Amino acid sequence: MKAAIIGATGYGGAELIRILHQHPEVQIASIHSTSRQGNPAYASYPHLQDVLCLDFDDIATEHIMGTADVVFTATPSGVSSKLIPGLMKTDAKVIDLSGDFRIKNPESYEMWYKKPASDPQLVNDAVYGLSEWYQADIQQARLVANPGCYATAALLGLAPLIQKGWVDPASVIIDAKSGVSGAGRTQSAVAHFPEMNDNFKIYKVNQHQHIPEIEQVLSRWGGQMPPITFSTHLVPMTRGIMATIYANVAKETSLKQLYELYHQVYDNNYFVRLREHNFPGTKEVYGSNFCDIALAFDERTNRITIVSVIDNIMKGASGQAVQNMNIMFGLCEKTGLEFLPVYP
Amino acid sequence: MKAAIIGATGYGGAELIRILHQHPEVQIASIHSTSRQGNPAYASYPHLQDVLCLDFDDIATEHIMGTADVVFTATPSGVSSKLIPGLMKTDAKVIDLSGDFRIKNPESYEMWYKKPASDPQLVNDAVYGLSEWYQADIQQARLVANPGCYATAALLGLAPLIQKGWVDPASVIIDAKSGVSGAGRTQSAVAHFPEMNDNFKIYKVNQHQHIPEIEQVLSRWGGQMPPITFSTHLVPMTRGIMATIYANVAKETSLKQLYELYHQVYDNNYFVRLREHNFPGTKEVYGSNFCDIALAFDERTNRITIVSVIDNIMKGASGQAVQNMNIMFGLCEKTGLEFLPVYP
Amino acid sequence: MKAAIIGATGYGGAELIRILHQHPEVQIASIHSTSRQGNPAYASYPHLQDVLCLDFDDIATEHIMGTADVVFTATPSGVSSKLIPGLMKTDAKVIDLSGDFRIKNPESYEMWYKKPASDPQLVNDAVYGLSEWYQADIQQARLVANPGCYATAALLGLAPLIQKGWVDPASVIIDAKSGVSGAGRTQSAVAHFPEMNDNFKIYKVNQHQHIPEIEQVLSRWGGQMPPITFSTHLVPMTRGIMATIYANVAKETSLKQLYELYHQVYDNNYFVRLREHNFPGTKEVYGSNFCDIALAFDERTNRITIVSVIDNIMKGASGQAVQNMNIMFGLCEKTGLEFLPVYP
Amino acid sequence: MKAAIIGATGYGGAELIRILHQHPEVQIASIHSTSRQGNPAYASYPHLQDVLCLDFDDIATEHIMGTADVVFTATPSGVSSKLIPGLMKTDAKVIDLSGDFRIKNPESYEMWYKKPASDPQLVNDAVYGLSEWYQADIQQARLVANPGCYATAALLGLAPLIQKGWVDPASVIIDAKSGVSGAGRTQSAVAHFPEMNDNFKIYKVNQHQHIPEIEQVLSRWGGQMPPITFSTHLVPMTRGIMATIYANVAKETSLKQLYELYHQVYDNNYFVRLREHNFPGTKEVYGSNFCDIALAFDERTNRITIVSVIDNIMKGASGQAVQNMNIMFGLCEKTGLEFLPVYP
Repeated sequence: MKAAIIGATGYGGAELIRILHQHPEVQIASIHSTSRQGNPAYASYPHLQDVLCLDFDDIATEHIMGTADVVFTATPSGVSSKLIPGLMKTDAKVIDLSGDFRIKNPESYEMWYKKPASDPQLVNDAVYGLSEWYQADIQQARLVANPGCYATAALLGLAPLIQKGWVDPASVIIDAKSGVSGAGRTQSAVAHFPEMNDNFKIYKVNQHQHIPEIEQVLSRWGGQMPPITFSTHLVPMTRGIMATIYANVAKETSLKQLYELYHQVYDNNYFVRLREHNFPGTKEVYGSNFCDIALAFDERTNRITIVSVIDNIMKGASGQAVQNMNIMFGLCEKTGLEFLPVYP
Repeated sequence: MKAAIIGATGYGGAELIRILHQHPEVQIASIHSTSRQGNPAYASYPHLQDVLCLDFDDIATEHIMGTADVVFTATPSGVSSKLIPGLMKTDAKVIDLSGDFRIKNPESYEMWYKKPASDPQLVNDAVYGLSEWYQADIQQARLVANPGCYATAALLGLAPLIQKGWVDPASVIIDAKSGVSGAGRTQSAVAHFPEMNDNFKIYKVNQHQHIPEIEQVLSRWGGQMPPITFSTHLVPMTRGIMATIYANVAKETSLKQLYELYHQVYDNNYFVRLREHNFPGTKEVYGSNFCDIALAFDERTNRITIVSVIDNIMKGASGQAVQNMNIMFGLCEKTGLEFLPVYP
Repeated sequence: MKAAIIGATGYGGAELIRILHQHPEVQIASIHSTSRQGNPAYASYPHLQDVLCLDFDDIATEHIMGTADVVFTATPSGVSSKLIPGLMKTDAKVIDLSGDFRIKNPESYEMWYKKPASDPQLVNDAVYGLSEWYQADIQQARLVANPGCYATAALLGLAPLIQKGWVDPASVIIDAKSGVSGAGRTQSAVAHFPEMNDNFKIYKVNQHQHIPEIEQVLSRWGGQMPPITFSTHLVPMTRGIMATIYANVAKETSLKQLYELYHQVYDNNYFVRLREHNFPGTKEVYGSNFCDIALAFDERTNRITIVSVIDNIMKGASGQAVQNMNIMFGLCEKTGLEFLPVYP
Repeated sequence: MKAAIIGATGYGGAELIRILHQHPEVQIASIHSTSRQGNPAYASYPHLQDVLCLDFDDIATEHIMGTADVVFTATPSGVSSKLIPGLMKTDAKVIDLSGDFRIKNPESYEMWYKKPASDPQLVNDAVYGLSEWYQADIQQARLVANPGCYATAALLGLAPLIQKGWVDPASVIIDAKSGVSGAGRTQSAVAHFPEMNDNFKIYKVNQHQHIPEIEQVLSRWGGQMPPITFSTHLVPMTRGIMATIYANVAKETSLKQLYELYHQVYDNNYFVRLREHNFPGTKEVYGSNFCDIALAFDERTNRITIVSVIDNIMKGASGQAVQNMNIMFGLCEKTGLEFLPVYP
């Protein structure tokens, strides 16, 4: 099986290389970049020297057509929407890591992303690649819209409670924290080391573009959802997301019942681990495709706290993308993804 | 004016030394420690070499009586309660940085701290040292119970809204994040560098001992408060606290009105800065006594987000302790505290 | 092939688990610990939950005898020397990650390690496991003394120049820097997060126990070596070692000639990469078994600078241990070790 | 006394603001920036909100002439050389933090800086502001060339040994490590947080522009110095420099004698501290103007190791600049600089 990676100079692309290089069923056929075409991979990523002996190719569709069985577009929002219509004319299956095909409602996309929406037919056909929940659809998909990092952590954490109606949807508050790699490889004042180191920042309060993505899925699960509250913070670390989620109970419950529900829902999902014994830290999933979830129930306030932890570049991006590729091609979803977390 | 610092080997004590060493009205008369008595300050804190030429004394009251005008007890909870009755027999004014004299209700103290409560008369007489709000009481106090770090950030952030009744008290959720110095100088698995670095952890969900402290003050302000939801996280940084606070509005409002309220309340308080222009990061108060507050109002959810940021060792402990000392001795509250933040 | 890991609660042990869990030819048969026996692996290492379903066993030889084909002793110096004589009575091959069997001269061991030397016969029989240089001996070995982390970085960097006599041995200065995981999992003041974060420390100047190990090997290569100068520093990062090595040239040379020599020596060694295009950072080998080497030649001073970079827990400990296991059992040395570095 | 700060948006400028804001004899009269003119200080540096109520002015000399008693040019090399001839026509004394007036030999400047040299007369008149060594000259100076950060750490560490001829000058190797703020506020790939965090890098091996500066001063002290070896590394921390310096002894000595020499030389210098009791870490001078020096002597190799530690933005830039200002204006050199290090 041959894979092409477009946007391979970004962190999502580099992580796809890391995973696919070891994937037993895949060969990396080509890597593509507008900014670095003609240069060897190691010039952009020295850690790949002597290991990935490919040059970056440009992103013209002709070069991909006919050679790749699967194409990953690890390109920014606004770029994927232009690139993918061409790719759909090849035989390849496409997995898009941007936000361009996630939001079904074009007005909503344009409001949150401040960019023109993608081709409506393709948006309609694209399958939302939250692997644990849309496996059947993903199996049939030509185009997968790979979920956002924050959305993955939040949705996997909330799914059982929203689907069962155990919490009041109007009460949902998601306080999310991310490592700085989430902001990508493009330099910025916010990610300048001397200012981000030993610092903790909040950004995009109530304005993050993952809000409509989360709300869209919650509405599929819980029907007519009210809007959620969602805050994002930057942690002085490279990788990792923790979503601390609060919700008021809609019916009497207990910590025991909550964990029973989550076990029922997730025990057959290798990549979701229920952390009953101790609350998770982000490092405990570092470099792996796991989503670790822990729960708390406060009898004083009748409020549930859900803690959901992922590696933003793995389960939050490239790991889940490969998981989706496995599903699309009829492989076991774990194939090539059984890395243990790198600890410490 | 002569000051004695008990528990000077901890971070609170070291920071008192840093501040008082430059304070124009104070001389550090003695530093006290049970574990290091007889040793020079620099043996415990090399950064003080050639600057603070004192040895640690033991903590027997006799050595303090008659020499110090003000005593800071930067001792752990459970130690202060034993030490302070003796100190009250001297002429010195006492500022306690532990939690032992903050909680008026002894059952509540014992439930949350899992230690016997302090002498009830002293607890009753102790003044809660949230400088911006209890200036008049602090002026008269013999014993000040200096607030907890998380409590300071949360209370300064919530005060205007709770006092005016602009939010629904049952909806208050405080998601707090702290640098690791908040856990003190005692080594622990949680603060072992290889495991805390590049990691983000949650701890004491709904169980932090600052909960009753916050609830007690909110009740003074808002009357009969329902319990709050309060989560604490460790950030891989040394100093700094951010409290991200959520509350549902109780009356129609706007961001403009909110800032007007906060300006009205805080414009005369040098150490509270309203950050209308950009949301604060913890580094922007690093090493200083400022509390920076920003606000957001989400019309979609009718919910307010309050962001409150302090240096946990300064405004969250020793800085506020010196601010209280200034007030107790009739000095300007800023004296010796006008450090600018160390940035970057 | 069945593997037992003794001392599995330390970082070396945890990394062996990470590697061997994915190794196609190995099954982890048992993990051993004195402090945690009877507890599940995840109680000590939450990142292993649901993945490694083993309890820690004690370290009594009976439990290992007959079940393991290979035993890794990731135990501290002083413990291995007591444990290994018993293990040698089993049929298992043994790879020791401590310093106990590295130093051939017992007086030297005792001087630098301040502990009694191990059984002289075993020390004599033990093969020094610098994989790239002692492959033939390792193939025959019953007991491998796995090299120290600093020693690995320094020796791989120096080998070509010392063996060829291109530098003056009396001029060799090794300025080494390590991530804090090198100090192990035991808590210490030096590794307490608030004091190590945003800090850079020097320690054990001219006194590190890897000095005799390096000198012993250099003497094997260069004959009668004078003592070296060796300094060690702690970097506020988790993993990684950089050795910056200085030596005066003994004969006329150029950067081009130097790289030609290194290519000649190392081009057939998968895990040594020559970084001609850009100087390496430690992150470029993070989580991998690579040793990246770059060179500089200063015509002004006639001095060579060698930069050698490894992941201290991988090529500096557990990765090289598995590489040695592969060699001992006739596998390709890369088997199960072809992780790409985790970047960023 | 009125001060103007040119280049106030950089880290050197921000630190000058932090120091001078509290300096008892100085008022910050104006701050200047080409990129931010017309904007308030807090727009560039939020930590200054409500504290420094000035707007950035442009850098036209007219605006400075007649108002400032002292002008700090915290501008990049190549900018200072153009700016300062104009400033010399005012009555102000000038302290330049760039490299433009440090190198007396114009060819040397142009070779290392790759820029045209400054006006030769001004270069000739400029006094090199290594405060501890050129106090008398600084007192008379109109224009001070403030030393480079690496040069300060290296020179203060080496001075006694070179001046007394106790070491072989041809053997001097300086292995220097710096926090990332040393690279300035301009964003770069090297300082992008996700790539610098948990990483340790080497750069400009034998090519750093502080080499001619160090050699020039060593030659003043030791006569006809051979070239030195000098390497620079980036540490994942914000502030701090450690120079680990190696030199072969030229005469029999001992650690005791070495410290006696250093005490003799430095005991009257408040800002140089001899760290006999424990080797220094960079955090122990964080935010302060101290240079902490420790020594080791290895009898095995007859080599001395000197460890010299500063805060690169303080003693390595703005702190020393203010120390020089104090000297130029006849104040005590400590005035306004007695900050204790911020620890932890």
